[in-house]
Amino acid sequence: MTKPTLNEVAAVAGVSLASASRALSGGLASQRMIAKVRAAAREIGYYPDATARALRTGGARRVTFAVDDIGNPNYVSMLRAIEASFGPEGPFVSVASTGALGHTAEALKQATAVMADGLIISPIRTGDRLRRAIESSPIPVVVIGSLGVKGIVDSVHVDSSRGVGMAVEHIHDLGRRNIAFVNGPLDTNPGSSREQGFFRAVRHLGIDPASYRQVVAEDFTVAAGAAAARELFVRWAAKAPSRRIDAVVAANDLIAIGVIRAALDHGIRVPEDVAVTGVDDTEIAAAYNPSLTSVSLFAAQRGALAAELLLKRFAQPSREVQVIEVEPELIVRRSTVTRQQKEGAR
Amino acid sequence: MTKPTLNEVAAVAGVSLASASRALSGGLASQRMIAKVRAAAREIGYYPDATARALRTGGARRVTFAVDDIGNPNYVSMLRAIEASFGPEGPFVSVASTGALGHTAEALKQATAVMADGLIISPIRTGDRLRRAIESSPIPVVVIGSLGVKGIVDSVHVDSSRGVGMAVEHIHDLGRRNIAFVNGPLDTNPGSSREQGFFRAVRHLGIDPASYRQVVAEDFTVAAGAAAARELFVRWAAKAPSRRIDAVVAANDLIAIGVIRAALDHGIRVPEDVAVTGVDDTEIAAAYNPSLTSVSLFAAQRGALAAELLLKRFAQPSREVQVIEVEPELIVRRSTVTRQQKEGAR
Repeated sequence: MTKPTLNEVAAVAGVSLASASRALSGGLASQRMIAKVRAAAREIGYYPDATARALRTGGARRVTFAVDDIGNPNYVSMLRAIEASFGPEGPFVSVASTGALGHTAEALKQATAVMADGLIISPIRTGDRLRRAIESSPIPVVVIGSLGVKGIVDSVHVDSSRGVGMAVEHIHDLGRRNIAFVNGPLDTNPGSSREQGFFRAVRHLGIDPASYRQVVAEDFTVAAGAAAARELFVRWAAKAPSRRIDAVVAANDLIAIGVIRAALDHGIRVPEDVAVTGVDDTEIAAAYNPSLTSVSLFAAQRGALAAELLLKRFAQPSREVQVIEVEPELIVRRSTVTRQQKEGAR
Repeated sequence: MTKPTLNEVAAVAGVSLASASRALSGGLASQRMIAKVRAAAREIGYYPDATARALRTGGARRVTFAVDDIGNPNYVSMLRAIEASFGPEGPFVSVASTGALGHTAEALKQATAVMADGLIISPIRTGDRLRRAIESSPIPVVVIGSLGVKGIVDSVHVDSSRGVGMAVEHIHDLGRRNIAFVNGPLDTNPGSSREQGFFRAVRHLGIDPASYRQVVAEDFTVAAGAAAARELFVRWAAKAPSRRIDAVVAANDLIAIGVIRAALDHGIRVPEDVAVTGVDDTEIAAAYNPSLTSVSLFAAQRGALAAELLLKRFAQPSREVQVIEVEPELIVRRSTVTRQQKEGAR
């Protein structure tokens, strides 16, 4: 049985994959776009039907979604997609936002204690304790992201390292040469894979090592991004123009918005003086001023896929472990492309 | 026993109440500000000590926080403050984001089913079903917001109606006269109280009824705010200048950001052509460009107070029901004050 994909929905609707994803997941989209994409989804039988079918085969009533920080809009997109996939008759989803505790393994223990039927986790830090907890879990676990070891449990992956590479290539294509990468903590999964992606890309493009650098923010937040960027921008105007940073690749949209806020506070124009990119394509990326160029990692789609994997696992506890890969996509907006470049491209 | 308050912390630190609240709740604040406010909190014994004391007296292990939409940063602030109040040794908090189900009463039923020891809810819609569920709840419930009937259970209130009034007065003081109020759904508690606050304020100020109006957005979100505002702005430039809307009071920050985004997309300048205010003083209000004037309803403080009420209830199940009121505060930023007005005020 082949299941219709979001790609096919996008093709039938005649819109981009990113637009189709946003329209179906409650992201920023026009009423017309939503109507068009929903019509296409109905036409090819995408999603509600498939999950309803799976649901009829399982009796699960409660699922815990465990993430590091539900304040990150990325996880909210996943949550909404999980709830939408389950539907109103599906399992009740509760969220364990483990940031304050710092241990996703604890969330797993708690989920078991409260008699959850299954767990969807998107850990940003992994370690032996979490891996052992997952291996010995009495309830099914689906992982969104990486545990370092693929194939223990059902999981949905996206190559965020490749995503950061796309942002670097875009910046380079626009003729920017002095690039700062503002990353989040390096001891996290996203931090370490995005670091790899950045350095691989700049080396591959042959950029002079003197003209790029990584700066590490304390967290994947607006405040931490702004604090890290202030150090970059504090003597920016006093430097020779050829030595000024002219592009910032940020590890996520929240850091990117902190970077833009800090740039504007220093009288630095975005994108004229400094181009800025984010990762995650969150709702605020399209709504910010200037709108933010961002790499979509399809959080909503990954959430929906994880929900479907869990439903299949409920229905068939002994089925083979499944690993799904999602491809990142660069969404170009105003934070990287000047008015001149935009008009020149026409 | 009198407990130190956030007001006293702010006074000792020599900062505003809003700054103290942000610094203690993980909001946007400088490292210096955080250090200063924490030092003041330690000095007067605010908060960690009081909760640690309460904790030693109760044995609760699990608390459910039930909200309509955890995607709203307002609720994330509450959640972080609740977790911070409980501390790492306190109850494990799980979130029931009931938006997809539409019934907070269902969250209460589920919380009981998963053997939670207590429930903190911040419902945006109330009705007999929810009131009955709370009255007959076998576990303690603390309400952040209004149930229509005060005093059934411990609760924390803020007069958001008065908050919207503060925004209207500010706009009026700045000489704006054609005011649109972009509200969220009127069948919600915040929608109906903010509607009251708006109309009371414009009448009190004697504004000509022909020059104000309410527009209702489909939801308290950026996308819904942008959609509602597009209708306001579509023929804006074609109108006589005296008939153009020159101020928008939005029912929350997300709607306000949608309104600004729509204005910018129509070539309308904020604040020069149209001043915009929000409500909630979320992190994005300070980070947006232009930064957003907003009415703080002290979400983090209300979350912390609710957590403390619940801990006290665990410790003393038969204590009298307590109702706490928090006062709103207007935070003026760049979305309402032009450069000229700012310089004129010096």
